[in-house]
Amino acid sequence: MTATQRDAGFGIVETDARPPVRIGVIGTGRIGRMHAQLLAREIDGATVPAVADAVPAVAERVAADLGAEAATIDEVLASPAVDAVAICTSTDTHVDLVVRAAQAGKAIFCEKPVSLDLAQVDRALAAVASAGVPFMVGFNRRFDPGHASVHSAVRSGQIGELHVLRITSRDPSPPPPAYVAVSGGIFLDMTIHDFDMARHVVGSEVVEVFARGAVRVDPLIGEAGDVDTAVVVLTHEDGTLTTIDNSRQAVYGFDQRIEAFGSLGMAVSDNPARHAGWVRTATATAAQPLPWFFLERYLESYRQEWAAFVTYLRDGGPSPVDPEAGRAPVLIGIAATRSLREGRPVAIAEVQ
Amino acid sequence: MTATQRDAGFGIVETDARPPVRIGVIGTGRIGRMHAQLLAREIDGATVPAVADAVPAVAERVAADLGAEAATIDEVLASPAVDAVAICTSTDTHVDLVVRAAQAGKAIFCEKPVSLDLAQVDRALAAVASAGVPFMVGFNRRFDPGHASVHSAVRSGQIGELHVLRITSRDPSPPPPAYVAVSGGIFLDMTIHDFDMARHVVGSEVVEVFARGAVRVDPLIGEAGDVDTAVVVLTHEDGTLTTIDNSRQAVYGFDQRIEAFGSLGMAVSDNPARHAGWVRTATATAAQPLPWFFLERYLESYRQEWAAFVTYLRDGGPSPVDPEAGRAPVLIGIAATRSLREGRPVAIAEVQ
Amino acid sequence: MTATQRDAGFGIVETDARPPVRIGVIGTGRIGRMHAQLLAREIDGATVPAVADAVPAVAERVAADLGAEAATIDEVLASPAVDAVAICTSTDTHVDLVVRAAQAGKAIFCEKPVSLDLAQVDRALAAVASAGVPFMVGFNRRFDPGHASVHSAVRSGQIGELHVLRITSRDPSPPPPAYVAVSGGIFLDMTIHDFDMARHVVGSEVVEVFARGAVRVDPLIGEAGDVDTAVVVLTHEDGTLTTIDNSRQAVYGFDQRIEAFGSLGMAVSDNPARHAGWVRTATATAAQPLPWFFLERYLESYRQEWAAFVTYLRDGGPSPVDPEAGRAPVLIGIAATRSLREGRPVAIAEVQ
Amino acid sequence: MTATQRDAGFGIVETDARPPVRIGVIGTGRIGRMHAQLLAREIDGATVPAVADAVPAVAERVAADLGAEAATIDEVLASPAVDAVAICTSTDTHVDLVVRAAQAGKAIFCEKPVSLDLAQVDRALAAVASAGVPFMVGFNRRFDPGHASVHSAVRSGQIGELHVLRITSRDPSPPPPAYVAVSGGIFLDMTIHDFDMARHVVGSEVVEVFARGAVRVDPLIGEAGDVDTAVVVLTHEDGTLTTIDNSRQAVYGFDQRIEAFGSLGMAVSDNPARHAGWVRTATATAAQPLPWFFLERYLESYRQEWAAFVTYLRDGGPSPVDPEAGRAPVLIGIAATRSLREGRPVAIAEVQ
Repeated sequence: MTATQRDAGFGIVETDARPPVRIGVIGTGRIGRMHAQLLAREIDGATVPAVADAVPAVAERVAADLGAEAATIDEVLASPAVDAVAICTSTDTHVDLVVRAAQAGKAIFCEKPVSLDLAQVDRALAAVASAGVPFMVGFNRRFDPGHASVHSAVRSGQIGELHVLRITSRDPSPPPPAYVAVSGGIFLDMTIHDFDMARHVVGSEVVEVFARGAVRVDPLIGEAGDVDTAVVVLTHEDGTLTTIDNSRQAVYGFDQRIEAFGSLGMAVSDNPARHAGWVRTATATAAQPLPWFFLERYLESYRQEWAAFVTYLRDGGPSPVDPEAGRAPVLIGIAATRSLREGRPVAIAEVQ
Repeated sequence: MTATQRDAGFGIVETDARPPVRIGVIGTGRIGRMHAQLLAREIDGATVPAVADAVPAVAERVAADLGAEAATIDEVLASPAVDAVAICTSTDTHVDLVVRAAQAGKAIFCEKPVSLDLAQVDRALAAVASAGVPFMVGFNRRFDPGHASVHSAVRSGQIGELHVLRITSRDPSPPPPAYVAVSGGIFLDMTIHDFDMARHVVGSEVVEVFARGAVRVDPLIGEAGDVDTAVVVLTHEDGTLTTIDNSRQAVYGFDQRIEAFGSLGMAVSDNPARHAGWVRTATATAAQPLPWFFLERYLESYRQEWAAFVTYLRDGGPSPVDPEAGRAPVLIGIAATRSLREGRPVAIAEVQ
Repeated sequence: MTATQRDAGFGIVETDARPPVRIGVIGTGRIGRMHAQLLAREIDGATVPAVADAVPAVAERVAADLGAEAATIDEVLASPAVDAVAICTSTDTHVDLVVRAAQAGKAIFCEKPVSLDLAQVDRALAAVASAGVPFMVGFNRRFDPGHASVHSAVRSGQIGELHVLRITSRDPSPPPPAYVAVSGGIFLDMTIHDFDMARHVVGSEVVEVFARGAVRVDPLIGEAGDVDTAVVVLTHEDGTLTTIDNSRQAVYGFDQRIEAFGSLGMAVSDNPARHAGWVRTATATAAQPLPWFFLERYLESYRQEWAAFVTYLRDGGPSPVDPEAGRAPVLIGIAATRSLREGRPVAIAEVQ
Repeated sequence: MTATQRDAGFGIVETDARPPVRIGVIGTGRIGRMHAQLLAREIDGATVPAVADAVPAVAERVAADLGAEAATIDEVLASPAVDAVAICTSTDTHVDLVVRAAQAGKAIFCEKPVSLDLAQVDRALAAVASAGVPFMVGFNRRFDPGHASVHSAVRSGQIGELHVLRITSRDPSPPPPAYVAVSGGIFLDMTIHDFDMARHVVGSEVVEVFARGAVRVDPLIGEAGDVDTAVVVLTHEDGTLTTIDNSRQAVYGFDQRIEAFGSLGMAVSDNPARHAGWVRTATATAAQPLPWFFLERYLESYRQEWAAFVTYLRDGGPSPVDPEAGRAPVLIGIAATRSLREGRPVAIAEVQ
């Protein structure tokens, strides 16, 4: 984010004379409310005319806070004052909403994952293709400034031909076992972000997956039929190898790193610090552990994600996170799940 | 900032059942507008019922944005719906506003500096003392998480008895020479933050100042009668020595560091990174230069500053930045200016 | 290394009154000469009475340099003035020398690998067991201070139960293709160090290996039947997962890192810097790339390795790198090679 | 140090066909013995034909260790097999030995300081000038790779015009008070290294000194008439400002940093780490404190110092640390001592 953009955030500078993109936010739980706030307050060129939620009182509260209108989903989809919708509801409702929004001719931002069911994903993407509306999946990590710098170093040729990509992705604390049971499993629930990042950074599709997992954090996760610790090897079409390691619990905070190694060097996105203070004594040089909360870590990525969406709608060009990103990571996750169960590498072609 | 606090920022969690502190913001230029936005949107326990500005249209715009009332200064000071005022106008108007706000019985947050004229500062502080209203000076850097960690390490005894404090404070780019001419000089305009920090971290008053300066960045600054590069040595009452170095232009960004060295170790507040990405090639390991804009660097300090103000008003106790902080740094600045001109160390007692 | 030990290196302090361990060095090529120099000059409690080499002139030159006797291998093995031998010859001669040294009753330090042929390894270990002589394999990386700190953090329980181990091991430049052809392949030639480290840090045997590889650095390596880029997943008996990534060419230097992740945190051995200087300009914050030469990177590990050998011989106890370390990494390498060829995970039990 | 040089250290590569420089080492206490060992074993192009010490047994021991001859000082100075002498005796004997060596036509390396008495320094330098022999002062820190990188960044113009130099120099533990009493005071004993570095990096002579000091580490140091904590501001002829802070005791190790700030950026020499291992837990990210012993920190600087001396003798050109470096830092130290006592800045011209 440049100083100018930031300044706009707190100033009264207009950087673009075009009318703003009017985005209706559907689903105003934690993530939807955050999106609505960012769009209403911090994103140049965006406004939030209306918000909707399955619980009207929740939508009303957010609407009042932002000076938006509280509406029903039907009203949002029908409103001529709405150019685009942000679909931030629970995953099981995404596909129907995508289909309806596409039919209503709205540009669509859909939180990830579109669906964990491949047939459903395909139904949504078909509707989007048929309507010809702009469509972007909410893989926000692509827009993290550190991760984006790795992507940019690879694309620009700065590190030469890419040989190996390494991703570490560890959550600060595990979800409740009840959630785990309906999550689709670690690969579709958590690693899916890393699968998206692997495709995005490497720029070549995954053709084979090998996964190993273990229950090391919480036996209840095992009882729910899942693992909490995993290692994955992806083979890409162009020969690049990606390794991923996941844990549901890094006690020191949210650990999210990417390293791209190539013929001319390597590009790394390390973890940001909580702050830049540290202490050195006779026994140690000690700094803080990592940011714990996802908004400490990834808030800037959401800002950049929305800026990219607005630019996409205004200027056209390819989607910043195109429909295939709603499909391919799900496929990889399904293959990883099978690999884990069957103890062998699984080709993506097997699960198509 | 804890995860819980952050979550509150985007969620609907109430962390305190007490009525909010209602803060009228006077002056809605760049810094005042930022304060108003933070108070209205991000600070638990604060609301902004009204804002005022010398230019009514500016106040109206901010008011509309925040759902506040645009008012005159008189109205803000007279309003029973205003518990406290944030004085964010130009420096030359601070003292009158502090006096009027004190007489109106409002709690007062006053942007730094209260005044560059010692007699005026004393007039403001006398009014505050006489009215017995809460009062806090806006030295935001005390609340930067890194800087605060140094203060905390010193106060807790973690680094033992403090021996030497080192402060580096370099701006990314110089102000216009026209501003320099009326700024009061580098020591009262820029180093005053460092003087405040030295008092805050050391916890012992400054008794002597030695300053050296040079014009290295821009000859026009010299023609305006000021220096743009300076080194200062402070001797504190308890024997601690503080060194400060300043520049009006660090081409690599906003360079703000503090290092406290003591008998058991050292505590450091280093610069935060723009982001945590870097690239290593055959010739170098290269990361970004520093954050450039003050909001990239210090936004969190403003949040924490307001959180401290709200806590102070609600829970009582000493002011987080007490009235003496409106006076002592000005004194040190005056002594530094004299030291620079006369080429000798100057005792604070000389300029009292 | 403590200050006291270092001081001894350049001083005249005696830290141990016991007679020194007299070590005959067999093989005085590059690595053998280094060992001889370290033993003769820098390691407390060791002397080098004699050195031998297949090329007598080479041994004579080293002997003259160190004030040792140039001898034949037979003489070294027969000499009553030799307590232990350091076998630093080419790999294909190790086993015969180990057997002869064992029969001669000498304590044995054998450079890694003992042999790439499992039957030969077993012959050597059997001779050692039968003679009951002390035996240590030269896996020096265990003694690198950074890597050793990871091992120590795991063993001490500081990071809790170990979940995932990650090893990155990249050479600065590839060996000649002619060497590659006779090297046994990347897993037995290069990754064998990482297999040793995985066993050492995890403390649990490897039960299964999955390997993927590619030719990305040099097509001639592919023509020689090998890969130059590899990713390996090890499953340990206790459930810990290890990932390894290798490259024959990191253009920025010798890249050697270990990360142990567990229930209470993580321990990391990062790369040391060439030096601690760096430059920050308007465009970047830039430091040196990594140390290039293995002695810049690992010299201290060799010192600590010899200190451990001397302590082992004087004080008894288990070998710092016991006979099994001569065998298990070879097994893992053989399994990795098969996994790469057959495209499936291979159990260690298959290749026993 | 390049890989090639290092390789030479343990290999049998000859990199220069010219006859070696034959250096007689006078004084084989701790520092002299280290120099003799480095010259005899690690420096290409140097040999040590003879060593001498006031205590013959000490010289004999070192001689035996290195295959050199133990000689008297007279013999070293008279020997036709000695091209240069390294004067490593106690400071009070330096001047006489420099004069005698100059008269004997030997090239001279003299440990710092030449003398703390300005008249004595001048006597030594006059003898050197009169004899026209090569002469180098042993300010080894100039050759530390990190510090040298700062010097190089300044000289090359990489950071533009230099504005401010900051030096931090803290010893791990204080000398005995008995030593302090005869040391000449902190500025001549310890800060003299920093005065040399300031001249070296800035490249402009110091014209004024302001010093402040305190007794914070050990009251016995105060009773011995010295301070143990000091802050110094140097004004250079070209307007550059240097700040130095010293302490006799940094409990976390040997803290030696330099920062050069200029119009195009800054160059920093930070402290090297003990090793590159660290641990992150729920409470902290913790690494080692600093190297403690001067050889851990500065051994490489001694190697580079000797390489520079050998090159100077073989290739000619200006001395790497010229005679003026034997004089100017003493002058600055005398001025600093007076500034501390009189509480005012002192011009170098006053103490000439």
